[in-house]
Amino acid sequence: MEFSSKLLERAVNEMSQLPGIGKRTALRLVLHMLKQPKNQTLALSEALQNMRNDIKFCKSCNNISDVDVCEICANPHRNEKIICVVEDIRDVMAIENTSSFKGLYHVLGGKISPMDGIGPHDLNIQTLVDKVKTGVVEELIFALSSTMEGDTTNFYIYKQIQDYKIKTSTIARGISVGDELEYADEITLGRSIVNRIPFETSLKS
Amino acid sequence: MEFSSKLLERAVNEMSQLPGIGKRTALRLVLHMLKQPKNQTLALSEALQNMRNDIKFCKSCNNISDVDVCEICANPHRNEKIICVVEDIRDVMAIENTSSFKGLYHVLGGKISPMDGIGPHDLNIQTLVDKVKTGVVEELIFALSSTMEGDTTNFYIYKQIQDYKIKTSTIARGISVGDELEYADEITLGRSIVNRIPFETSLKS
Ligand SMILES: [Zn+2]
Ligand SMILES: [Zn+2]
Repeated sequence: MEFSSKLLERAVNEMSQLPGIGKRTALRLVLHMLKQPKNQTLALSEALQNMRNDIKFCKSCNNISDVDVCEICANPHRNEKIICVVEDIRDVMAIENTSSFKGLYHVLGGKISPMDGIGPHDLNIQTLVDKVKTGVVEELIFALSSTMEGDTTNFYIYKQIQDYKIKTSTIARGISVGDELEYADEITLGRSIVNRIPFETSLKS
Repeated sequence: MEFSSKLLERAVNEMSQLPGIGKRTALRLVLHMLKQPKNQTLALSEALQNMRNDIKFCKSCNNISDVDVCEICANPHRNEKIICVVEDIRDVMAIENTSSFKGLYHVLGGKISPMDGIGPHDLNIQTLVDKVKTGVVEELIFALSSTMEGDTTNFYIYKQIQDYKIKTSTIARGISVGDELEYADEITLGRSIVNRIPFETSLKS
């Protein structure tokens, strides 16, 4: 791609560093900016810089926060005895959105993936183990994605904390509510049969 | 979408102002930035601001440029007698990429579209007419998109300059080189038959 302007070229190149943004998309985005008022581009670049420079990660759960301890961890109405272990802050947002969980979270920051060079020490696992050691935690809910990496990570954590005799669970996998059985993929369908729940339990949810 | 951080929320909101970037994509992009070194976000936001503040539009053709007159217009080897009229600088880039055109360009900045509230006076049409009036231009090539708006714009410009008796042409539309006829859309195929060219001419290109 040949540019008539170095300023344009630099903007496109920086923009196309972002995942999923190719050069063509980057060009479309920056040309859009040129048609908008200057203060809109200023607002975007300031918002990105302020975020990158000033954002904090909660000292307790590693969730993104503007303060040292995030709103969830600091909320006295949340149950500190149950911790939901997730990969990413997007998972915290998704679960919070359901309003179905009143415990705390622990954000690992990824999952163990030897292929991508991510080992246990690259994740926030030790702080979780330390939390369990304090004796306050009664249950860990593993809510990682159900892939080989997710399962490996679950099992690694499980081995680290198994001496502390706390309850561990994983979120239920199954057919989405409202979905027709015939359209479900077979692995999900298989798991949903193996992990069937008592009918009386299903009546309550 | 509920955010655990105002800084994150602001960054996502600004990012999702861009066309085609929804909140989910914006969140994915800014979380990616948080995993990259700080100076990468700094480089992006500086590149965007510098571009927005300092970029120029060529005084002659309205192409994006870092100087008052763009490299193409300033190049003495280009033929100033032939002007290719395009909507957007991306069209200039696309045509330059083919190395098949050695004239100059004129970037309109869009096309006449009453539906979008874009009239002739919102586009760089008058400067084109003025250029024709100087008597230097011998041919205008209309290279706008072949839509109703494109055709309207071509015709509007044509009416403005028709007294000056210069040559006008539009780029050829037809089946893409290498494409099978059966897969072409019928409008393109129809035009390619109506606008057929002498076989001898086709041998030369
Ligand atoms: Zn927290
Ligand atoms: Zn120019």
